[in-house]
Amino acid sequence: MSGIEFSTEPVPDSQEIAALYLANGWSSGQKPDLVRKALENSDGLVLARHRGQLIGLVYALSDGHLVVYYPHLIVHPDYQGKGVGKALMERIMQRYGDIHQQVLIADDHAEPFYRKLGFTFADGTKPMWIYDRAADGAG
Amino acid sequence: MSGIEFSTEPVPDSQEIAALYLANGWSSGQKPDLVRKALENSDGLVLARHRGQLIGLVYALSDGHLVVYYPHLIVHPDYQGKGVGKALMERIMQRYGDIHQQVLIADDHAEPFYRKLGFTFADGTKPMWIYDRAADGAG
Repeated sequence: MSGIEFSTEPVPDSQEIAALYLANGWSSGQKPDLVRKALENSDGLVLARHRGQLIGLVYALSDGHLVVYYPHLIVHPDYQGKGVGKALMERIMQRYGDIHQQVLIADDHAEPFYRKLGFTFADGTKPMWIYDRAADGAG
Repeated sequence: MSGIEFSTEPVPDSQEIAALYLANGWSSGQKPDLVRKALENSDGLVLARHRGQLIGLVYALSDGHLVVYYPHLIVHPDYQGKGVGKALMERIMQRYGDIHQQVLIADDHAEPFYRKLGFTFADGTKPMWIYDRAADGAG
């Protein structure tokens, strides 16, 4: 898709974050200030914009050597299926290509997407979570 | 178990790390310098020692607000089943208790252990990985 621009800064403001996250039904969109602070403290961030509008992002937590974990990959529903998520992942993975282990937690339906990027599922493992009850759910 | 001391520093040296990781059969024990640098760059670390010997550790990656991810919890086989892992997790979780989302990837057999600490499994999600081929496997 043409006209999409990728960047690593600046961190989006809370209003942009809320618009993107709530469009995807992610509960953390109700706490956009929290997301903004998290992105500011992240170890890596790639943003996608179309005509200035924030349409996707991915961010990373890493110890710089052994592990990089990608907590969020999010693309606005209007722009899904157009290669934006793939482009975001490729850009951030390039940055962490020399890290021993890249890891993320995929929804089952997203497994083929991540397999195409080189990720594999390790049988016999599962993600486990504790959520802040007040925040009500995933994302 | 008495005589076990918990601390957050200093980061163990490579020899101690290799001894602990290789005793557990974790391949990253073959790259102890890499693990040491990762621990130095981590956002949180708790160590367990018995008579000076490093017998366990847990570390954290976090954006400080939204997500904390625990890449490694490791306890020396001679000290498993004695509450060391539970004590390590409780100590590091206390530090991140106000973070929106705590997350880790458990081996299936460890699920009951993490459930007791308050973690739950979110159905319909799975961990996915890319490993450095040269490092040969998990851990």
